[in-house]
Amino acid sequence: MNKTERLITDMKHRVYEGNMGLPEVGLVKLTWGNVSEINRNLGVIVIKPSGVPYEEMTPNQMVVTDLRGEVLGEGSLKPSSDLPTHVILYQNFPEIKSVVHTHSTHAVSWAQAGYEIPALGTTHADTFFNEVPCTRQLSESEVAEEYEKHTGDVIVETFKDKQLKPLEVPGILVKNHGPFTWGLSVEKAVENSLILEEVALMAKETRLLNPQSQVMPDYLLLKHYQRKHGEKAYYGQVSE
Amino acid sequence: MNKTERLITDMKHRVYEGNMGLPEVGLVKLTWGNVSEINRNLGVIVIKPSGVPYEEMTPNQMVVTDLRGEVLGEGSLKPSSDLPTHVILYQNFPEIKSVVHTHSTHAVSWAQAGYEIPALGTTHADTFFNEVPCTRQLSESEVAEEYEKHTGDVIVETFKDKQLKPLEVPGILVKNHGPFTWGLSVEKAVENSLILEEVALMAKETRLLNPQSQVMPDYLLLKHYQRKHGEKAYYGQVSE
Amino acid sequence: MNKTERLITDMKHRVYEGNMGLPEVGLVKLTWGNVSEINRNLGVIVIKPSGVPYEEMTPNQMVVTDLRGEVLGEGSLKPSSDLPTHVILYQNFPEIKSVVHTHSTHAVSWAQAGYEIPALGTTHADTFFNEVPCTRQLSESEVAEEYEKHTGDVIVETFKDKQLKPLEVPGILVKNHGPFTWGLSVEKAVENSLILEEVALMAKETRLLNPQSQVMPDYLLLKHYQRKHGEKAYYGQVSE
Amino acid sequence: MNKTERLITDMKHRVYEGNMGLPEVGLVKLTWGNVSEINRNLGVIVIKPSGVPYEEMTPNQMVVTDLRGEVLGEGSLKPSSDLPTHVILYQNFPEIKSVVHTHSTHAVSWAQAGYEIPALGTTHADTFFNEVPCTRQLSESEVAEEYEKHTGDVIVETFKDKQLKPLEVPGILVKNHGPFTWGLSVEKAVENSLILEEVALMAKETRLLNPQSQVMPDYLLLKHYQRKHGEKAYYGQVSE
Repeated sequence: MNKTERLITDMKHRVYEGNMGLPEVGLVKLTWGNVSEINRNLGVIVIKPSGVPYEEMTPNQMVVTDLRGEVLGEGSLKPSSDLPTHVILYQNFPEIKSVVHTHSTHAVSWAQAGYEIPALGTTHADTFFNEVPCTRQLSESEVAEEYEKHTGDVIVETFKDKQLKPLEVPGILVKNHGPFTWGLSVEKAVENSLILEEVALMAKETRLLNPQSQVMPDYLLLKHYQRKHGEKAYYGQVSE
Repeated sequence: MNKTERLITDMKHRVYEGNMGLPEVGLVKLTWGNVSEINRNLGVIVIKPSGVPYEEMTPNQMVVTDLRGEVLGEGSLKPSSDLPTHVILYQNFPEIKSVVHTHSTHAVSWAQAGYEIPALGTTHADTFFNEVPCTRQLSESEVAEEYEKHTGDVIVETFKDKQLKPLEVPGILVKNHGPFTWGLSVEKAVENSLILEEVALMAKETRLLNPQSQVMPDYLLLKHYQRKHGEKAYYGQVSE
Repeated sequence: MNKTERLITDMKHRVYEGNMGLPEVGLVKLTWGNVSEINRNLGVIVIKPSGVPYEEMTPNQMVVTDLRGEVLGEGSLKPSSDLPTHVILYQNFPEIKSVVHTHSTHAVSWAQAGYEIPALGTTHADTFFNEVPCTRQLSESEVAEEYEKHTGDVIVETFKDKQLKPLEVPGILVKNHGPFTWGLSVEKAVENSLILEEVALMAKETRLLNPQSQVMPDYLLLKHYQRKHGEKAYYGQVSE
Repeated sequence: MNKTERLITDMKHRVYEGNMGLPEVGLVKLTWGNVSEINRNLGVIVIKPSGVPYEEMTPNQMVVTDLRGEVLGEGSLKPSSDLPTHVILYQNFPEIKSVVHTHSTHAVSWAQAGYEIPALGTTHADTFFNEVPCTRQLSESEVAEEYEKHTGDVIVETFKDKQLKPLEVPGILVKNHGPFTWGLSVEKAVENSLILEEVALMAKETRLLNPQSQVMPDYLLLKHYQRKHGEKAYYGQVSE
């Protein structure tokens, strides 16, 4: 096995583990959800195959594509049907290394409500330096042709319109659909899906208790985000 | 064992596994719920026995009946009291092969509210090509005599009135009672119960967050349903 | 061991198993909750000791009392502080054999809301032949002296006022406190706690979805209750 | 190992077990949450290290500091970033021996709503002899400098303003953040976090069912609190 092969084998294992982690923590039922990782130097994306039950999945079944999403290698399974969304995100957010999509219950509920998730507390601010946005509805023509590509486009459009940075707000809700998250590694992208789901649940409970509950002050949002992610971050051990 | 016996033994095992799967995924508590399978060529239905605790159940206890629900074979346990509902569904929906009934929490809540479950997002549309309907209330005389048969009748009536196709909308809520689902196999019918419960939970959360939330546009409903079930379905591997 | 000793040892084991079953199914956290059984011929009640952690509890620690709740046998642990409530229930409901008290989440929520649980569907009607009532608030003097006895009294008062039969409605909510259930055996009384909790959750979800949701028609309530418990019950196997 | 070393080793084990107990019962996800213990005679506090995943944590990694929160011993990991909050609580509440902080879902939801948790029933009153208060919002300058110390200060301020005693109300909500609890031991402080979360859930459900639900009468609150914690407490075994 040469070095490239070894790197791709490692990617397959990480993508496999990332996918398997989703049902374990309750973010995914049945075959809903997919995880991918990119290596821009090698020019490859590795992603879950489409519709394979988690209990039957193996690392070797992970699908390898080029940076435009064309499958590499004979005998490969079909990639996740959401691959074109991942490709668009990788092309437009050059700083991200992994993308995760789930239908987790509470994030989907906000997406179906068509609402962004407001920053109501420090649990949110520790990871999302802003509200978690919700895209506009895709148009009929956007759905009819290249639907999954257009799903990526509308995410990118939302980030541009709101002037958000992908690593400062590592996730979004696609209207009437569900969440996408990303990060600097498979592990972080999966973790961001978990945090988004918990934040969505807490925000829903908060709004049911107090429909007039206010978003947190900007200075508290900033403080918590920077405590973990700023230049002078002091949360965690030094090497984190 | 001749071929017919072997086929029936296989049915008993599938029906047993389908029933056992319900409490495992939290769809059924105590003895609530039942699963059946039909083989129209053999002229038999296999269904769970009535009121037997799941932890004591064995494949051999599954009850075999003819297509009108008359128990075949001596020494059989009594079939599920909901058998007449299953029989009516098999008679009127000739394309289905398995029926599942549960009292899963969120589907029951919609049934008790007397509301159909609106198609609010793609999780719904991937399986149900429409709202999930809710039957009318049974009348006093329908309840007094042949209650379980009339439960089947009102399901069929609802599908006729709404011009729905059983495989396009593989489930329904019976008012003040709970969900029935079906499919082309025990596995699919059970899976549809799981999906219905998740969709019911998501729709409830969505409506609590945003009481004015709109159903998804028809073109998005159509797209997602066809992505998985249409002639040009492209979700999953080829053989799926 | 003589016959009486053997019967009491058996009671201790059943009461122990009943108590241990409560945290297993999520009805009880920490040491909240207690189960007892009565044998009127022997003149004894067996109940959980007070405040002993479930993981340390043994069958032999179950406390034996006479029918007025006086502890029998030297070296016994103190009985559950709710024993006087159990005693009053046994004295006034001569048909019951076991009592269970929990602080299960959703039943407590209805008790804190001060609302009876309306009969909204067949899951309810299969066990409770009516709404599940909620007592009035205890007065200051009732709380100051013999609080636990008065808790029993107000349960009995509610059943008299509403002309309910304990085996037809095997449970109640005590206002600002929580549920008590009972039955013909420890197993049934524990099962009724489980059903009450599920019914409380379903009714809450229903009312949030549709605040105007109506109680089920009497003829459907009657049908489901009698299907399981009437003279011509046809649910379950013959010996059930 | 001398006596002091043995005492500190014991503290590390208790603090480790306390921290590990939080994700086990669902109070903590990822690395959210921290537990500490104080020994005023030895002049030490032991607390969880910052940002170490629970599955990799060992008792020996627990961080030892003096009573002002200065780390003792070379090669120590960094303490939890919330240490200054713990220090302020220990300085101002001399009767407490352990502090716990979590982001548990329902307690956080009340904190984000900015509401105190009203005393709606006996589950609450058995542990909290009053509403569970919610602090005011920290000001911009309080957040900018020594944020974690000021979090402690605002907790102390709230207890002074409301004239509450820390052992009678062993927990609080920090606005837009989450709960802190404490107690006479690590075990009790962790238990109080569990109870606070359950009480927060029950209170939320109660208010959704009945927005006008009243707090329990003072005489019932007093009775339940004293039944477990008063001079004449009669809940539990004598030695408890």
